Amino acid sequence: MRHLLGIDGLSANDITSLLDEATRYVRPRDPPSGAAPSPEASLLAARGTLRGKTILNVFFESSTRTRTSFELAGKRLGADVVNIAASSSSVTKGETLLDTVRNLEAMGSDAIVLRHPASGAPHFLAAHARAAIVNAGDGSHEHPTQALLDAFTIRARLGKLDGLAVVICGDIMHSRVARSNALLLGALGSEVRLCGPRTMMPREPHVLGPTVRVFDRFDDAIEGSDVVMMLRIQNERLAGAMMATTREYARTFGLNERRLRLAKPEALVMHPGPINRGVELDNVIADGPRSVILEQVEAGVAVRCAVLARVLQ
Amino acid sequence: MRHLLGIDGLSANDITSLLDEATRYVRPRDPPSGAAPSPEASLLAARGTLRGKTILNVFFESSTRTRTSFELAGKRLGADVVNIAASSSSVTKGETLLDTVRNLEAMGSDAIVLRHPASGAPHFLAAHARAAIVNAGDGSHEHPTQALLDAFTIRARLGKLDGLAVVICGDIMHSRVARSNALLLGALGSEVRLCGPRTMMPREPHVLGPTVRVFDRFDDAIEGSDVVMMLRIQNERLAGAMMATTREYARTFGLNERRLRLAKPEALVMHPGPINRGVELDNVIADGPRSVILEQVEAGVAVRCAVLARVLQ
Amino acid sequence: MRHLLGIDGLSANDITSLLDEATRYVRPRDPPSGAAPSPEASLLAARGTLRGKTILNVFFESSTRTRTSFELAGKRLGADVVNIAASSSSVTKGETLLDTVRNLEAMGSDAIVLRHPASGAPHFLAAHARAAIVNAGDGSHEHPTQALLDAFTIRARLGKLDGLAVVICGDIMHSRVARSNALLLGALGSEVRLCGPRTMMPREPHVLGPTVRVFDRFDDAIEGSDVVMMLRIQNERLAGAMMATTREYARTFGLNERRLRLAKPEALVMHPGPINRGVELDNVIADGPRSVILEQVEAGVAVRCAVLARVLQ
Repeated sequence: MRHLLGIDGLSANDITSLLDEATRYVRPRDPPSGAAPSPEASLLAARGTLRGKTILNVFFESSTRTRTSFELAGKRLGADVVNIAASSSSVTKGETLLDTVRNLEAMGSDAIVLRHPASGAPHFLAAHARAAIVNAGDGSHEHPTQALLDAFTIRARLGKLDGLAVVICGDIMHSRVARSNALLLGALGSEVRLCGPRTMMPREPHVLGPTVRVFDRFDDAIEGSDVVMMLRIQNERLAGAMMATTREYARTFGLNERRLRLAKPEALVMHPGPINRGVELDNVIADGPRSVILEQVEAGVAVRCAVLARVLQ
Repeated sequence: MRHLLGIDGLSANDITSLLDEATRYVRPRDPPSGAAPSPEASLLAARGTLRGKTILNVFFESSTRTRTSFELAGKRLGADVVNIAASSSSVTKGETLLDTVRNLEAMGSDAIVLRHPASGAPHFLAAHARAAIVNAGDGSHEHPTQALLDAFTIRARLGKLDGLAVVICGDIMHSRVARSNALLLGALGSEVRLCGPRTMMPREPHVLGPTVRVFDRFDDAIEGSDVVMMLRIQNERLAGAMMATTREYARTFGLNERRLRLAKPEALVMHPGPINRGVELDNVIADGPRSVILEQVEAGVAVRCAVLARVLQ
Repeated sequence: MRHLLGIDGLSANDITSLLDEATRYVRPRDPPSGAAPSPEASLLAARGTLRGKTILNVFFESSTRTRTSFELAGKRLGADVVNIAASSSSVTKGETLLDTVRNLEAMGSDAIVLRHPASGAPHFLAAHARAAIVNAGDGSHEHPTQALLDAFTIRARLGKLDGLAVVICGDIMHSRVARSNALLLGALGSEVRLCGPRTMMPREPHVLGPTVRVFDRFDDAIEGSDVVMMLRIQNERLAGAMMATTREYARTFGLNERRLRLAKPEALVMHPGPINRGVELDNVIADGPRSVILEQVEAGVAVRCAVLARVLQ
């Protein structure tokens, strides 16, 4: 595996092997999450894994969470990590993306973690660059490490991915998180149930996999499900969905206690963050016992350690 | 000591023990300051102290000095240090402070160094977070590491804190530096003399400790003092103090050679920086033999090493 | 060598010794450039060179490339590296350059890498600071590490600097890159040929060295040359050169295939980046077999390693 460009192109084996590898990088925490922590000695030993390697976080969109998660992952493996924010880069002097990245890799970067507003930007670079490219989110296309960390979290809690019913609710069409998750979950045998305003649903959901089903009503989608993933709704997109207010959105597609009772009793609630509290997710759910939102964040660093170790070794 | 939220709540013993610990982290410099440097071998050994630990500098107000000082302190102890500037964080997407910090600690952060415009923000977090919280300045409330580094500097130069007369001059009411210093100095037996424009004095100075006295005239306050701490005056607050110009402020509450002659001959001049040269402090004083302003900056890194080592061990 | 302020003041011996030292820090790459990589074991060993040292990158002008190159160089030698962007620093609170830098060095910084819009700023600091000062570009004065990396690249490819004819084409007058290169190349025995619009030529080119010659026409300058260095043209300066468009500039002083045929068959094409593609440099040349532009970038980190090791040991 030279790059991680998307879930598309990974086999079920590739995915499982990355999730297995990620368990090595889980830090002890208190109270413990579903995932067993790796022994401290083994975590300290891991700090030699990428010693002498250089990782550049090149972010053309700002994202403190994802950037920090990758930065911590790189440092936890002993790599040199340098952050490049596009706004302060030569891009503003009119340099092309390819020139920018070729320059960065000429400085001796072994991996480039790329967040870019254009779908396909990491694939374009991978075709022209020597460094390993890791997609940290490209346009409305893919966000593969998010899907991996979500899968890691589900597996740690429910013990498997195969045979689960997973709801993804929100603006599916514009969401790289939904897309990467649907691809991954389908590949590992989960049933994927998409729901959201009709104007936000993908036109051809079947391209996301044979197990994808589309629902108009949230209540129908959530019925008997094992996992409910809520997406962040963008205010500016509500008008296109014929919704006047976030309140109306919350009523139709927000997750509240009544709706969650339709899912299985042990169903997990997930969200990629940051949460619009009271809009797509009620406070009592976000902070409730079925929410694994912080475990997703925790899994993020471990999964990114696994990805960086894989593409750099 | 799980957190450092303020001087309020620390005993004289806690403070002395932190100051003692800080002496271990003083780097050699030339010319030497009052504080004896730690041997180089012991400084290199200290780099293992926080190996494998992660410290996040989360700054909701920009402060290059304080952020850099904490960053260097963390690195000097071998920790992974990541900077988070609030402007680029999810906070701008409407996320709450608590959500932001819970996310950051879920990534595996052992300590969070917090600068925040709201008084009490670090206390709020400490009640809800698992990570150690270090207050790097909250509103007009406290700035405990500043008070510790000031005390460290005085002790290194004058050999003690007990029985000294320390003037703090400027906008006391809005100053977290003044507040933390008054609390610390009082706890260690110094007499604290506050002075400044009447509109900038605290309404109830006695809450800062039994040894606090308030002066209207700078000349009266400085008479026979051992230390003169000048605060930075904010231009935008002058109007409230019925002063038309910084010149008028300098005349009434600026430190110049004539005034400094009223203090003891060996009195120290201090300032938390950055200095308004020619306003609260004359150039000749700022750069003169009694100024220990750069020693304060130097002490800052050593003191922050001690604090981080303490809360993380 | 306590500081690196400019090429001016270095002897031919100083320069050669820095270039020799830089070869120790070249990383393996594929395909290999002219410079042989240092063995991996020796690169890992180099990571102990500056262990316990602190380097501050203080940039009063933004430059992602140069800042990143210095940051990687420092980390490759095991130093603690902290970035300070002037916009977020106390400078915006009206603090003087000297106060800012004195504060930074009081925090225990061994070297300060300074980029500043004022010519002479690093020299001023070197006269007042204890830390080693490395000039990363000051106004239109000098950019010594750029000249060193250019020389390193030429020497790696052509085996020598002595006796070569090197063209530098563009806005010579405002270019610190041109100035440092002319000084260095002259000192090592190259003939320096300057060309560009008459309004952009230095009034007294002879101060740049006895081997400097000025040309009005690019075709005359390039004839029989060994190296062609193209400078980035600033759109806002074209009017002063009586040029209406970048197109007109490209026609008169741009490097294209026809012109390059006038140089020696093995002539190198160089550019400090970022490139204005289609203006000073045709695409086919920039990406062609004689372009060593990415090798310049690669050499940059190695040369900066050598400089930092030199001033800090």
